[in-house]
Amino acid sequence: MSSPGVFSPRGVFVCLEGGEGSGKSTQSALLRAWLEEAGHTVVSTFEPGDTPVGRELRRIVLSPETGALSDRTEALLYAADKAEHVDTVVLPALERGEVVVTDRYVDSTLAYQGAGRTLPVAEVERVARWATGDLRPHLTVVLDLEPAAGLGRFEGRDRIEGESLDFHERVRAAFTTMAAADPEHYLVLDARADRDEIAAAVRRRVEPLLVQAARA
Amino acid sequence: MSSPGVFSPRGVFVCLEGGEGSGKSTQSALLRAWLEEAGHTVVSTFEPGDTPVGRELRRIVLSPETGALSDRTEALLYAADKAEHVDTVVLPALERGEVVVTDRYVDSTLAYQGAGRTLPVAEVERVARWATGDLRPHLTVVLDLEPAAGLGRFEGRDRIEGESLDFHERVRAAFTTMAAADPEHYLVLDARADRDEIAAAVRRRVEPLLVQAARA
Repeated sequence: MSSPGVFSPRGVFVCLEGGEGSGKSTQSALLRAWLEEAGHTVVSTFEPGDTPVGRELRRIVLSPETGALSDRTEALLYAADKAEHVDTVVLPALERGEVVVTDRYVDSTLAYQGAGRTLPVAEVERVARWATGDLRPHLTVVLDLEPAAGLGRFEGRDRIEGESLDFHERVRAAFTTMAAADPEHYLVLDARADRDEIAAAVRRRVEPLLVQAARA
Repeated sequence: MSSPGVFSPRGVFVCLEGGEGSGKSTQSALLRAWLEEAGHTVVSTFEPGDTPVGRELRRIVLSPETGALSDRTEALLYAADKAEHVDTVVLPALERGEVVVTDRYVDSTLAYQGAGRTLPVAEVERVARWATGDLRPHLTVVLDLEPAAGLGRFEGRDRIEGESLDFHERVRAAFTTMAAADPEHYLVLDARADRDEIAAAVRRRVEPLLVQAARA
C-alpha cells in the first residue's frame, strides 16, 4: 500500500468483501433495511458491472465468444468498470451525503488477482487505484469463511468458483492480511456466525460513521 | 518520459503518426508493398480497434448509446485496446521476426489526450505504458501537416475531427515535441511533400532496421 488513500468527506462508503458464499448479499440487504429505517438514503451496488458500460464490459470479460484475453487487457477492463462505477455511481451518491454499500471493490481485484499471480499485484493495484481516484471505503467488512464451506453452497460454478481450493485459500488470506494492516477501516467477521449477529456487528461499526458524516 | 522503453530484439516495429488527413494509410500501404517485394512478412495494423475485443471497445467508446463516459473510463478502455493489440498482434509478429506497421500507437493517445487536457498526461502515459509493457516502435514516422490543410481533406467529420483548430494545433505540437526529444527513434516529414518522396524517406530509415533485425 503506497498511499493512505482518499476518504470522501461526505456520505458513508461501506464495502462488503469475502469469498464465494460468504453471505455478502444477505448482509448488504440487512444493512440497507436498517439504514433506510433510520432515514438514510442508500445506494446498494456491486462490482463488476453495475453501470451501463460496466454491463458491456462484464459481458465481454465473461462471454465465451471473446476467447482468451491478455492478462493486462482483462485487468484494464476491470479497472475501466471501476472508474465508471466510482465516477458515475459511488462518488455522486457520497457527494449527495448518501450511504453507499458496495458488494466487492478494489480489494476483490487485489485478492483474486494476487491469488491468480498472473500479473504483479503492485501493478494491478496501481491501475485500480488510479481508476478509482484512490477512493477508499470508510469501512470494509470482510466476511471470512473457509473456502471449502463457501464453495459447498453452490451447485453451478463459474470460472472463478471453479478454481482450486488452494486458490481460494490464497484469496481468503489476502483479505485478512489487508484487514490486519488497517484495522481502523476494516472489520473481519466469521461468516459462519448467525446472520443477525453479523448484521449487528456491522451496524456497530457503521453507526459512528453516520454520526461523523452528519457532522461534516 | 520516465523510462527509455522496451524495444523488441526481433522483428521491426514501425509506427505512423500524424493528424487527420496526413496520409498515414497511403504511406502504410506504400511501405508494406515495398517490404513485401523485398520478401518480408508484414503485419499492417492500427489503433484503436484491430482485435476482436478492440472492435467491441471501439464500438463502446464511439456509440452514441453509451452516453457520456468518465474520462478515466475512456482512457482505460483505450489502454485495454492497446494491451490486447500489443499482446495478441504486435508482439507475436515481432517474435516471429516480421515487420509490424501500425497506424497510430501510444503517441496518438498522448497527443490527443494531452491536447484535450481532461486528465494529466503523465497519468495517461503511465497507464498506456503499462498496457503495452512499455514496448516502443523502432521508428515512429510523424507525417507533419498544418491542421487546416489536413482537416480540409474531409467532408464528414467525427467527434475528434470536429474539434477546434487550436486543439489540432496542440496535437501537432505534441507529435513534433516527442520526435525532437528522441531523434534516434523518430522521423518527422512534411506531409505536403510528394507521396513517393515521403515513401522514399521512410524507406531510408527502415532499411537499416531491417539489416539490424536480420543480424539479431
